[in-house]
Amino acid sequence: MAVPGPAPGNGARPKLDLQFLQRFLQIQKVLFPSWSSQNALMFLTLLCLALLEQLVIYQVGLIPSQYYGVLGNKDLDGFKTLTFLAVTLIVLNSMLKSFDQFTCNLLYVSWRKDLTKHLHRLYFRGRMYYTVNMLRDDIDNPDQRISQDVERFCRQLSSMASQLIISPFTLIYYTYQCFQSTGWLGPVSIFGYFILGTMVNKMLMGPIVAKLVQQEKLEGDFRFKHMQIRVNAEAAAFFRAGHVEHMRTDRRLQRLLQTQRELMSKELWLYIGVNTFDYLGSILSYVVIAIPIFSGIYGDLSPTELSTLVSKNAFVCIYLISCFTRLIDLSTTLSDVAGYTHRIGELQDTLMDVSLKSQDSEILDDSEWDLHRGPGWPTAEPTDTAFLLERVSISAPSSNKALIKDLSLKISQGQSLLITGNTGTGKTSLLRVLGGLWTSTQGSVQMLTDFGPHGVLFLPQKPFFTDGTLREQVIYPLKEIYPDSGSTDDERIMRFLKLAGLSNLVARTEGLDQQVDWNWYDILSPGEMQRLSFARLFYLQPKYAGPSQKVSGLEEKQRQVGTGHHLFSWILPSVLDEATSALTEEVESELYRVGQQLGMTFISVGHRRSLEKFHSWSLKLCEEGRWELTRIKME
Amino acid sequence: MAVPGPAPGNGARPKLDLQFLQRFLQIQKVLFPSWSSQNALMFLTLLCLALLEQLVIYQVGLIPSQYYGVLGNKDLDGFKTLTFLAVTLIVLNSMLKSFDQFTCNLLYVSWRKDLTKHLHRLYFRGRMYYTVNMLRDDIDNPDQRISQDVERFCRQLSSMASQLIISPFTLIYYTYQCFQSTGWLGPVSIFGYFILGTMVNKMLMGPIVAKLVQQEKLEGDFRFKHMQIRVNAEAAAFFRAGHVEHMRTDRRLQRLLQTQRELMSKELWLYIGVNTFDYLGSILSYVVIAIPIFSGIYGDLSPTELSTLVSKNAFVCIYLISCFTRLIDLSTTLSDVAGYTHRIGELQDTLMDVSLKSQDSEILDDSEWDLHRGPGWPTAEPTDTAFLLERVSISAPSSNKALIKDLSLKISQGQSLLITGNTGTGKTSLLRVLGGLWTSTQGSVQMLTDFGPHGVLFLPQKPFFTDGTLREQVIYPLKEIYPDSGSTDDERIMRFLKLAGLSNLVARTEGLDQQVDWNWYDILSPGEMQRLSFARLFYLQPKYAGPSQKVSGLEEKQRQVGTGHHLFSWILPSVLDEATSALTEEVESELYRVGQQLGMTFISVGHRRSLEKFHSWSLKLCEEGRWELTRIKME
Repeated sequence: MAVPGPAPGNGARPKLDLQFLQRFLQIQKVLFPSWSSQNALMFLTLLCLALLEQLVIYQVGLIPSQYYGVLGNKDLDGFKTLTFLAVTLIVLNSMLKSFDQFTCNLLYVSWRKDLTKHLHRLYFRGRMYYTVNMLRDDIDNPDQRISQDVERFCRQLSSMASQLIISPFTLIYYTYQCFQSTGWLGPVSIFGYFILGTMVNKMLMGPIVAKLVQQEKLEGDFRFKHMQIRVNAEAAAFFRAGHVEHMRTDRRLQRLLQTQRELMSKELWLYIGVNTFDYLGSILSYVVIAIPIFSGIYGDLSPTELSTLVSKNAFVCIYLISCFTRLIDLSTTLSDVAGYTHRIGELQDTLMDVSLKSQDSEILDDSEWDLHRGPGWPTAEPTDTAFLLERVSISAPSSNKALIKDLSLKISQGQSLLITGNTGTGKTSLLRVLGGLWTSTQGSVQMLTDFGPHGVLFLPQKPFFTDGTLREQVIYPLKEIYPDSGSTDDERIMRFLKLAGLSNLVARTEGLDQQVDWNWYDILSPGEMQRLSFARLFYLQPKYAGPSQKVSGLEEKQRQVGTGHHLFSWILPSVLDEATSALTEEVESELYRVGQQLGMTFISVGHRRSLEKFHSWSLKLCEEGRWELTRIKME
Repeated sequence: MAVPGPAPGNGARPKLDLQFLQRFLQIQKVLFPSWSSQNALMFLTLLCLALLEQLVIYQVGLIPSQYYGVLGNKDLDGFKTLTFLAVTLIVLNSMLKSFDQFTCNLLYVSWRKDLTKHLHRLYFRGRMYYTVNMLRDDIDNPDQRISQDVERFCRQLSSMASQLIISPFTLIYYTYQCFQSTGWLGPVSIFGYFILGTMVNKMLMGPIVAKLVQQEKLEGDFRFKHMQIRVNAEAAAFFRAGHVEHMRTDRRLQRLLQTQRELMSKELWLYIGVNTFDYLGSILSYVVIAIPIFSGIYGDLSPTELSTLVSKNAFVCIYLISCFTRLIDLSTTLSDVAGYTHRIGELQDTLMDVSLKSQDSEILDDSEWDLHRGPGWPTAEPTDTAFLLERVSISAPSSNKALIKDLSLKISQGQSLLITGNTGTGKTSLLRVLGGLWTSTQGSVQMLTDFGPHGVLFLPQKPFFTDGTLREQVIYPLKEIYPDSGSTDDERIMRFLKLAGLSNLVARTEGLDQQVDWNWYDILSPGEMQRLSFARLFYLQPKYAGPSQKVSGLEEKQRQVGTGHHLFSWILPSVLDEATSALTEEVESELYRVGQQLGMTFISVGHRRSLEKFHSWSLKLCEEGRWELTRIKME
């Protein structure tokens, strides 16, 4: 099992530039398709709730100062009324706050649904998921972008959107209130204090960020090392490498802990700064109100009224500072949102870009399961030709070096082809060109048919299993097209599983349709995976081969192919890319023999001599693009 | 590439039982080896800091009430003195708090270092890492336990330990202060209020927890589905499975979002509860102080003194509530710590357990690189025998079904052995028994030597690479035993890389000792990995084969083996487990030929007929434990 490398660090800070704005607006179009859409209405509700909440919070914040009034005056009736009012306000406030959060959450789910489905539509269109994952280097981890980045984007955006819109109003209102009790001095000194604190904070943060990134990288390296040892435990044990790996792992730990220690010394100063700032802010309000009091502006107030004033001013000042602090916190969230916007936007741009480029080249039309052929397909050509290659040159998408040069080849019914060649001579690349995943750099490739469940079938070396029941593995990728069939289909599946030597698997899965929650890759051995792939191949293969075969409902739907001869049908070839590498020669021969009996035509890639007897032609790929095509003599 | 399954959910709640206590104390012994150890002194420092901090916090908390006094009385001098005092106290408080946090962090690093190193020592002792990862089912993810769980355990423990010890004192002191101003009424009503709140909270939390677990599982499933598509993009594209996978992925998304929506409706009630509780608590203090005021106990106080009293009481009450809340939060942390304690304790128990069991059976002594042999090794046996198996039966460690029965076999110098057989007949299991990783169930296995860098070498089918330079890959696992050598060794490495067909790799890595930060599994093709393994094999093989070989300093250190004949040396066999499966027959033959020229003896597992010409004996493993050993006739 290959071990995935440590997760890539986020690296550069996301930019808030014009491109961000474009991408953000593009995403907004998906989130808010129209002004009257459900999402837009929910967002308006959220705004109203948040505004109402601010009004109530102000009232709640004044309650302590009113208590100073009634308690200072020993006003029992006032106390009772105030307490009743306070409880009412608090319950109202809690309700509003909770509904605010609730709406926020609903909005997040709704946004996530729309955005993910939008990306899914682009990602699964045609073979986009292949192009993006395998052919494009410019986009990393598209799967994470769709599953995780969208989630975080919607979560962060839903939590900050309403706050961000309301905060200017809150700031202005509380600044005004502060000005009312203390004159210009209050707002100005709070503002100055806040700017000073932020500057000191930034200064202390500077050296920490780089260390933090380094620490996270080292933490990832340390985990990766442990994962590597776990995955390769047997090989390491055979090498008796415990001693070496112990030293190497300890060295990584040492480096990590050293960085953590350095980080902590740096953080100490930040802590001191932040703590001092927080506490000093809380007494700032008293200093601010003290100046008008001592300068005699409030000379006519009684001590009780003074206390009320002090308490009210304390609330206003502290709330004002907390507004500023929340704005700073929002800027962090905003920077996260910008990062996610760029990652999602990049994905969308790439998907759009690929989509535009491939509109002409027919990559997108496979959902119709229709024939497609090269423009120059000669009508006189015999209809049993599946592939016709004329002077085709092939090179990897991102390279100019030709893997195969000037290949001419015709693959017809019953004429199986064995492709051999060293590593790196382009065996699988040739299959990719046949399958339409890559385009040839020169020459013409004509296909009578396409790959897929009703076309040419492909068995990769590392088999592909989806999630789901045993039946879903065998009939894959048919499931969504035909419903679960009855006993006729069951019988066929069981027969092919038996032919592939997997009868015992049905017992292990407790039936074809038992829902399993395991991962098929964990539960099957490499040999069993390849056998199961063959069972799938046998099942999906149109079966005009043996006249003794029963014809089930499913088979009647089999496609019929021809140029003008729409009723003429024939067997499509199957492509096997080292599909028997984990099996012995005996089992391999057995599986090929069954295939032959079912009338299949093979295009195989393989290393073993023993494969030759199942093929009519041998294509040997050599270094520097040369190739040899020879007829295999039957013994 | 196989896809790892979704992460296992945490499942059951960790128990705080006797076993927890035992495991916790066991870990404490590692964290605090003695009363005068560095960790113990650091912890004492932390306790002192935390106590001092509490004293200062109380003083800081009283400042606002003192401001009511000086502002109410318009006492300018008092105001100046108080402000000076306040700033001093706040700075002192910030310093203490920051140093508290700093010590906490240092303690975390120190604990983590000790605990990880302790586990490393156990994990890397002998072949424990193999036993734990491959043979024991009772312990999942040992790598994560060492790298992540230890980290979190130390982090959580260091943050909660001092708080937990100090909180009883804080609680008593503030309860006393509250009693002073309000009599019994204050503490009792706060205590009652707190209990009520906690009960309502628990009640509302109940249904949420289960939903939360379900949501996380579905989120994991959704990500896993996307990862699966990404990894198998090519296979899916060949199958034209985009349409099917789109529907399947959308269905998972739908299920996830539906669960999230249900979760949110449940959370709404929790929000309302929590918010109401928080705000009501803040006015509780005024109600509590109001009763003694209205009942006339404080009849002789001036309004200013009353305000001071109200403010002081508000601080005491709110701090008391926050103490209770923090205790509840600590209980969550404690439950996390209990979980990590169990996971780390389980690992330690298993490691100890395996260690005890294997003390007799010599699994642990390979770090000495010394000879070991069965007790009955006959001294008359010719010394060129590497392995002697007599009537050996083999079965997988966790199963009773014999894979191989009654196998007798002698492997001597120059007598290469080819092992063939179907999947599941026990080819690799036999190698494991030869390598001492598994023990045979019956019969005797005698080894003259051991696996490892100076013993028998093993090439697995999936090659094993460590992190580091190209040189480190080739000489692995020697690196830590011999220092980087000079030109003589370089020349050898280059020669063997060339023999393995990897000359171009040196150019790609920019030299043997260039530090690379890539993952070797990503950068090499399967064929190149197997070639590189052969280069390693050529390099590590003791070379008495060709008389034309130069003898470098390294080679002089080669081990000399014999019973009494300590100067008699010979070539040890190399074990190759399908080590050429990704290579063509031509390359395979070339590599074996080089090995033969170097005088190697092979024990190979392979499927290809063409391998036979490099071996003298063929062992065919059949179904049901049968086997055939035949001499291969040289053509």
